[in-house]
Amino acid sequence: MDYSKLNGLVPAVVQDEQSNEVLMVGFMNAEAFAKTLATGYVTFFSRSRNELWLKGETSGNRLRVVSLTTDCDDDTVLARVVREGDGNVCHTGTRSCFTNDIALEARS
Amino acid sequence: MDYSKLNGLVPAVVQDEQSNEVLMVGFMNAEAFAKTLATGYVTFFSRSRNELWLKGETSGNRLRVVSLTTDCDDDTVLARVVREGDGNVCHTGTRSCFTNDIALEARS
Repeated sequence: MDYSKLNGLVPAVVQDEQSNEVLMVGFMNAEAFAKTLATGYVTFFSRSRNELWLKGETSGNRLRVVSLTTDCDDDTVLARVVREGDGNVCHTGTRSCFTNDIALEARS
Repeated sequence: MDYSKLNGLVPAVVQDEQSNEVLMVGFMNAEAFAKTLATGYVTFFSRSRNELWLKGETSGNRLRVVSLTTDCDDDTVLARVVREGDGNVCHTGTRSCFTNDIALEARS
């Protein structure tokens, strides 16, 4: 994996393996990626807290990994997951973090 | 949009609006995001070339935006798209850039 482009991090896209919804994007460093692989649960590196972050550690809404795929230049990860707990991935209480629709302007 | 966390950039996840496949992840700065909104086609900021990058400009494999959604803390974009041209998004000639499956180790 190429962690050099973002100072030791790669973006990690989390997709629901049943609904195919994109649930959230976090970041992993090498340690978070290794932990995700070893445990089978998504672990990010928290940029704000500057530490490893097992997603759902306190809420119980962990993300069980079904598959991990890297992209063509090995600088991004796609994790397809099963949502545990109440299934709400976002800290705002919604299933996905992507809830703010942007109105498109004129298409050419 | 909050561009402050990645030196002026946000990750942009591109998802096929028909198959729901995650096709690629790129980065947008404010100008790329505005151009994507105004034109209806995905425009990234190329970190390697340090310039705006209309995806598919030379190949014809442009990504027509069906919806744009930002996440809870406004630091990531999800673009749902229709693939134009031959529909191969990756420069390696595959539909998606996510083709390298990582073997999972023991799950606990």
